[in-house]
Amino acid sequence: MRTLRGVDDKLPGSRRAGRGPRQAQAIYQVTLELLAEGGYDGVTIEGVAARSGVNKTTIYRWWADKDALLGAAIIQSSLLRFEVPDTGSLRGDLRVLVRRVVRLLTEDSTSRVVAAALSAVAGRPRLAWLAREFFADRLSGERAVFGRAAERGELSDSVDPALVLDLLAGAVWSRVILRQMPVTGEFADQVVDVVLEGCGARS
Amino acid sequence: MRTLRGVDDKLPGSRRAGRGPRQAQAIYQVTLELLAEGGYDGVTIEGVAARSGVNKTTIYRWWADKDALLGAAIIQSSLLRFEVPDTGSLRGDLRVLVRRVVRLLTEDSTSRVVAAALSAVAGRPRLAWLAREFFADRLSGERAVFGRAAERGELSDSVDPALVLDLLAGAVWSRVILRQMPVTGEFADQVVDVVLEGCGARS
Repeated sequence: MRTLRGVDDKLPGSRRAGRGPRQAQAIYQVTLELLAEGGYDGVTIEGVAARSGVNKTTIYRWWADKDALLGAAIIQSSLLRFEVPDTGSLRGDLRVLVRRVVRLLTEDSTSRVVAAALSAVAGRPRLAWLAREFFADRLSGERAVFGRAAERGELSDSVDPALVLDLLAGAVWSRVILRQMPVTGEFADQVVDVVLEGCGARS
Repeated sequence: MRTLRGVDDKLPGSRRAGRGPRQAQAIYQVTLELLAEGGYDGVTIEGVAARSGVNKTTIYRWWADKDALLGAAIIQSSLLRFEVPDTGSLRGDLRVLVRRVVRLLTEDSTSRVVAAALSAVAGRPRLAWLAREFFADRLSGERAVFGRAAERGELSDSVDPALVLDLLAGAVWSRVILRQMPVTGEFADQVVDVVLEGCGARS
């Protein structure tokens, strides 16, 4: 491992964020499968190599260690990524966003990955960067929703998108992950209505 | 263990929620210490007995197994419990509540316990009851804040307290646990202001 890392460090462009080998999405998928099945301890570079059929040296060429691979998988996997909506109205966009958060936290294919990722990060302060980067990445995409709303005169550009998203996504997290209760479509619409009203949004 | 449980089942009032031996708070404290130090796997009845100096049979007399003890410790420990505020106004009460959630998630003595509890529950569907009971217990206390607000004419009694608390506490959770960012007093006041405005609250 030491030797491989030494060699890899000399390869230009290796292990940069946002890049990866051709098989990156397949590697991410296996990494998240192993995370969902066995938690943080269930993820090993060897296990990912075995199940994905990608050579271990290829994986090490791109990611220095398990935490780097796990970070790339959580942040860049298509499984946990969704397109930023553009419905033509702020209310419409936020309703779509909230419903996507609900699906992410409740559908079997993603909820087990999210629970395992949350469990891994919550218990390991050294993985705090992973959560920070994941949400910073999502926020940078979601700012477009607020930019368009400001252009349409729906929302003052003094309203902080991060605050709005913390209220919306936080309410869903609280209901699903903390209270362990079901989320209805009515709940999803209510949180959007309360937050938009509270931010002085105009339809 | 089997034998002890058999005997215990015949003791009237044993292992009821909300009750416990005289040393209950000391046992809870040790249980949460072990949880913070070693996660879910770090908690064992034997370990709790050894560190608290309470006989193992006494612990088993009250809690059938580790999950029952962990549940009692998380739900009933004074460490994770705070008095429901009564400042004379809804805004005042909610500001106090939000600041207490911030402290719970950021102060060293509690944040490590919360992270370990979240990690344990997120990764184990069979512990979902524990999260549900914890938040149901807190909600039942916090309803008093909304009852008084309705009496003072500050908030319609058609507003769902759980929705308001999901928005407020969820925003703090999102900022601290998901984004892993600091929460300022300004952020805490802003979430209260947005949610109260959004719910049509009157000062």
